[in-house]
Amino acid sequence: MSKNLEISTLLDYYGMLLTDKQREAIEYYYNDDLSLGEIAAIYNITRQGVRDSIKRAEAVLTEAEEKIGLIRTTKMLAESLAAIRKNVDIIDQRNMRVYRSDEINESIINILKELDRLEEI
Amino acid sequence: MSKNLEISTLLDYYGMLLTDKQREAIEYYYNDDLSLGEIAAIYNITRQGVRDSIKRAEAVLTEAEEKIGLIRTTKMLAESLAAIRKNVDIIDQRNMRVYRSDEINESIINILKELDRLEEI
Repeated sequence: MSKNLEISTLLDYYGMLLTDKQREAIEYYYNDDLSLGEIAAIYNITRQGVRDSIKRAEAVLTEAEEKIGLIRTTKMLAESLAAIRKNVDIIDQRNMRVYRSDEINESIINILKELDRLEEI
Repeated sequence: MSKNLEISTLLDYYGMLLTDKQREAIEYYYNDDLSLGEIAAIYNITRQGVRDSIKRAEAVLTEAEEKIGLIRTTKMLAESLAAIRKNVDIIDQRNMRVYRSDEINESIINILKELDRLEEI
């Protein structure tokens, strides 16, 4: 079982799909870096029992991303919003420097407001 | 058990979280408008068994939206993208009519490309 960053990310997005106990065990293992033996001692079960429980939780998280794709979509969204913001800045600079149109300025402010809102998703 | 449109939407977003059999039963009921009795006959189980299975599937779908919020987020995204597009159109019209800046025009094209991409999410 390899410990990795990816599981922490999956936990952020899909942790709520796990049972409380599953989430607790997998957080001990991946976020708090406890060993299987240490987690086994907490629950008073075998190391194999902990390993199985973590494996099941991992499967739920991985499958959720395959099926729902929230991490994939959020990454794409962030890239597109950054690209939009860059182009809005170009228009803004051009407008401020050359045209000084209030109408364009107001539209830019509206767009930036929506971008801020979407970046909080 | 009230039949409604909302379950069909939940099925579109989270149907993959159900087992094949759960999904099939709930689709018979909500999308194909079969009665509990008709579905019971297909599986050769009781009406109560079908009802329980559909109830469980509904709980999975409803909980998934509460926890992950994909439908809520998608609606908000669509609203923001429409608002951005409207403001880009205002800038575009102003630019075409008055300033005819190639730089602004190019930025507008880039933004519209990203909006098209995001609308396909």
